[in-house]
Amino acid sequence: MDHDLRAGELSVMAPPATDAGLVFIGRIGTPWTERTACPRQGGLDGPLCTIDVFEPWIAALEGIAQYPTLEILYWMNQARRDLVRQNPANDQRTRGTFALRSPLRPNPIASSIVAVERLEGGRLFVRGLDCLDGTPLLDIKPDRQCFTPPKVGDAICQS
Amino acid sequence: MDHDLRAGELSVMAPPATDAGLVFIGRIGTPWTERTACPRQGGLDGPLCTIDVFEPWIAALEGIAQYPTLEILYWMNQARRDLVRQNPANDQRTRGTFALRSPLRPNPIASSIVAVERLEGGRLFVRGLDCLDGTPLLDIKPDRQCFTPPKVGDAICQS
Repeated sequence: MDHDLRAGELSVMAPPATDAGLVFIGRIGTPWTERTACPRQGGLDGPLCTIDVFEPWIAALEGIAQYPTLEILYWMNQARRDLVRQNPANDQRTRGTFALRSPLRPNPIASSIVAVERLEGGRLFVRGLDCLDGTPLLDIKPDRQCFTPPKVGDAICQS
Repeated sequence: MDHDLRAGELSVMAPPATDAGLVFIGRIGTPWTERTACPRQGGLDGPLCTIDVFEPWIAALEGIAQYPTLEILYWMNQARRDLVRQNPANDQRTRGTFALRSPLRPNPIASSIVAVERLEGGRLFVRGLDCLDGTPLLDIKPDRQCFTPPKVGDAICQS
């Protein structure tokens, strides 16, 4: 909750976030321990990061190493949730929250694409993240660009 | 919770989903009123669907119509959350939950890419969804492939 309003930004009285509940299924390890040090957008050639999956979810990793890229959902637990207009460049232009990929949003869920280096037990080594060290993990999915639903046969992209 | 275990599927004692809370920010309208009728994966040439954004979030839509494609996060509220291995094709092969994009996962958050047709007030008309009518909306973001963070100037892809 460490974001002070900038020129043109608008906050609202957000309703309570009690419609559904999340479970943190792991922990993301990155080189960045302060928000200001995080890159604005991760790249698949970025530094090696770790994703530690907690029990009882480690068995759910079976088969993911076949995908060159994965989609990672995580929880940006330091972001305020009540902004509808933001001014990320701190200039004269504000934008609606949904026109940005900023962490500040009603449900601060990030979605990133990562390149998989390797899987060791419950630990994935990946490149492409841009979040703080210690960020809670919500989900791991095959990258949609590599995935075809099993009914019609698994298709795995080669990249 | 209407999924009975199939051959080779494995459920676990899932911890309580109380680490963080979500707010439903809108409602998705689709032609599909039963799970078995939903397509396995939406296409950008699929049927027209609606996304109704609730107050106080409508102001956050400002500027999104400039993006030809958006990423939509929504909550698959009918999915059981305790499976670590699944057998989606009901065949001899099981897969870890994280190697699938199935709705059945510890945090049943879906991420879809949609093509924007138009915005009318708080209602977006889009193509590309594959979920049930009435599905709760969690977030709208610019498609990462169309978006560059504002610090370095907005870049909007032409597609």
